[in-house]
Amino acid sequence: MTKRKDQIKLGAFLLYTGHHVAAWRHQDSMQNTELEDYIELARIAEAAKFDAIFLADGLEVRLENLDAASRKAHTGLLPFEPITLLSALAATTTNIGLIATASASFTEPFNLARQFASLDRLSKGRAGWNLVTSPDPGAGLNFGRENQIAHRDRYAMAEEFADVVLGLWNSWEDDAFIRDRENGRYFDPGKLHVLNHQGRYFQVKGPLNVPRSPQGHPVLVQAGASDPGRELAARTAEVVFAAQITLEEATTYYADVKSRMPTYGRSPDDLKIMPGIFPVVGRSEAEAQDKFEALQEKIHPEVGVDTLSRFSGGFDVSGHPLDGPFPDFPETNGTKSRQRLVVDLARRENLTIRQLYLRIAGARGHWQVVGTPEHIADVLEERFDNYGADGFNVMPPIMPGGLRDFAELVIPELQRRGRFRTDYEGRTLRENLGLKHPGGPPKAEAPASIRSESLTG
Amino acid sequence: MTKRKDQIKLGAFLLYTGHHVAAWRHQDSMQNTELEDYIELARIAEAAKFDAIFLADGLEVRLENLDAASRKAHTGLLPFEPITLLSALAATTTNIGLIATASASFTEPFNLARQFASLDRLSKGRAGWNLVTSPDPGAGLNFGRENQIAHRDRYAMAEEFADVVLGLWNSWEDDAFIRDRENGRYFDPGKLHVLNHQGRYFQVKGPLNVPRSPQGHPVLVQAGASDPGRELAARTAEVVFAAQITLEEATTYYADVKSRMPTYGRSPDDLKIMPGIFPVVGRSEAEAQDKFEALQEKIHPEVGVDTLSRFSGGFDVSGHPLDGPFPDFPETNGTKSRQRLVVDLARRENLTIRQLYLRIAGARGHWQVVGTPEHIADVLEERFDNYGADGFNVMPPIMPGGLRDFAELVIPELQRRGRFRTDYEGRTLRENLGLKHPGGPPKAEAPASIRSESLTG
Repeated sequence: MTKRKDQIKLGAFLLYTGHHVAAWRHQDSMQNTELEDYIELARIAEAAKFDAIFLADGLEVRLENLDAASRKAHTGLLPFEPITLLSALAATTTNIGLIATASASFTEPFNLARQFASLDRLSKGRAGWNLVTSPDPGAGLNFGRENQIAHRDRYAMAEEFADVVLGLWNSWEDDAFIRDRENGRYFDPGKLHVLNHQGRYFQVKGPLNVPRSPQGHPVLVQAGASDPGRELAARTAEVVFAAQITLEEATTYYADVKSRMPTYGRSPDDLKIMPGIFPVVGRSEAEAQDKFEALQEKIHPEVGVDTLSRFSGGFDVSGHPLDGPFPDFPETNGTKSRQRLVVDLARRENLTIRQLYLRIAGARGHWQVVGTPEHIADVLEERFDNYGADGFNVMPPIMPGGLRDFAELVIPELQRRGRFRTDYEGRTLRENLGLKHPGGPPKAEAPASIRSESLTG
Repeated sequence: MTKRKDQIKLGAFLLYTGHHVAAWRHQDSMQNTELEDYIELARIAEAAKFDAIFLADGLEVRLENLDAASRKAHTGLLPFEPITLLSALAATTTNIGLIATASASFTEPFNLARQFASLDRLSKGRAGWNLVTSPDPGAGLNFGRENQIAHRDRYAMAEEFADVVLGLWNSWEDDAFIRDRENGRYFDPGKLHVLNHQGRYFQVKGPLNVPRSPQGHPVLVQAGASDPGRELAARTAEVVFAAQITLEEATTYYADVKSRMPTYGRSPDDLKIMPGIFPVVGRSEAEAQDKFEALQEKIHPEVGVDTLSRFSGGFDVSGHPLDGPFPDFPETNGTKSRQRLVVDLARRENLTIRQLYLRIAGARGHWQVVGTPEHIADVLEERFDNYGADGFNVMPPIMPGGLRDFAELVIPELQRRGRFRTDYEGRTLRENLGLKHPGGPPKAEAPASIRSESLTG
């Protein structure tokens, strides 16, 4: 294993109360979350030089099992909607990236392109959009769609949605606004590009009514693990938040996605793969284990079983004995990667339902590492140097303590080893992630499926 | 005329470069607008104790006449999208209200309800939503709709949209989140209300995935001047940004809208009528006139004629002689109030096209007052005491100078006369506007057309 010359990238995945399902029951977790609490989390992350803070999203409160739902902080209910929250944090931060998740399933590409462009300008080039689709049937019910969209169609729609958004982000050239007071000319009509997109799912004329930001346009983030998801990532994504658990899975995934990129005229460096990690940090191994156990023991069995059912695409696990084997279930139209993850884990380690939910419910299926700062730095380096990751999306088990632990214990260790920055390289998210500015005239930049025409040429 | 006992309410209508169409050509106007510029505008407005800042919005860049469009700062292009901008300003202000315009025509009620609820929580109860519809055909082209929706349908849709949003804002009772760590109960299922809206235009299940704010929900603002617009305002609005020019028009409008409220079980005090005013303030009458002329002389004739054409619902004025009479034109499906305003003004004062555009293009059809702080305070008092207004939405001709003029010259005069607050009454927008908290259990609050049911009885 040779040491890579580039440095590890780090995202801080902020989830109120923390990523452990029972964190809210712990005495040290955030309660009554207000903007000030998020300002403090962003301050901790920025002081530690994280590349970005990252917010997940959902479009429904999951109430199928109301008793279990009312026992959790994370049922799809969030203190704030991500785009509005990151806009507020744009005003209180200066260097850290601001990445929000937003579904392409139930919004208009014009509205989404515009709000992210606005966030990008508010933050002077620090925005990122995590493109997801909404597989859960419940979300559709909040948008007048009884029947969920088939997995295949969802990706075809998402692909076209992404093309439209990227096209709209290229409506204005960087120097379109000349503001010539003397001659009364505010913008140069020759530097305006009208999209005129006429596709299968969307018809969007443009131009966007927000100018470009200093980084050209927001960084495009994805998480897709399925085959069409990987293909979409290889074609358009600049960051992937992956979810592989073992080193082998991670390196296989990494090689697969990067190998698909040249077909689209892209270099592997144009995409940063950043798997999630759920780190429980202790100054000693025993302290780390104690921290973890203090959270695990607070998982209510009803919550544990309900989590398994949701990861199994809606298959009801509750009828089966807690200490019996995890049963087989039919694949549904839900998120494929989660279903695969649950089955693989149960079969690989021959786990009972209780053992499985203790493994899944805590870190919710992400890569979980419990140990000292040195140990965590070791496994991050190993995965990075083996090309299983270009960086990591850190999911602290409890907030704010878990984020502070990583910032104050793990990051200094990575810095001592020369594997993480000690100061920001630039002001934009692209500069810090080492991604290129989309640059050039929009015509050359737009994907082939987008017809871009200048009004005057 | 008896002096009213309540005080005047004031909104600061922030438009970059200023409300005068040629403000951007003036050497003192804002250029290269960044977040910092808006932070400064909000700071000026909050220091002066304005009730709220207000942002207009549009969903297209109007390019029919590209030459005229490129000569203006205001073609529908905005430095920032309003909801994201106000979210950023929520982090830099503490008392002032934050009102954003958002169209009900081309977005999902769930997404809009959620983002405004989030802004309301970010600001601890200072948000307002100005509900508008999108009459311009160009906006539809950015959303896959070639044919604009008929005026009548637009209002029926907007009514149902508003009902859904209000219903979603009542998803959770104020004390729904008990966060009982000991027993592992995060929220009380009995304080959750599922909307289950099944209407003509929208089917939305709910609940909303954001809790309620300290003011219950955002203040509902409208501007509708047409008959269905007035009816919708009487039924649901808490603030109306009206656009009457003469005192007589203002008092007639005021009496009409307020008289429609009892039918809906509402008191006239539940709605504040705040017409726009375009004030040009000078320490002397001559200084005010000079300021105004300095802006007027910068109106490019092409921009003037184009503005008239747009106010005339798309009727092309450019073929007619500049110094000839304003021609008759057929009423179109565009905004009725603007068409009426142009025709009434032209006929009342027998204006040529050039005279008319000089009157319209500058203040864009709003009530224009040029004079000393004393004169402006006089006319505001007169309109207030005659029940032509409960307050005013101030549209400074040039930014930031025009806002500063009003804040530093007119507001102290109103305060000396006891007609405007010297400090905020409360922390929420409702408290400052003197509007009641929606309060009570959501079931009693929801409009009759909304079926609200508790999950647990």
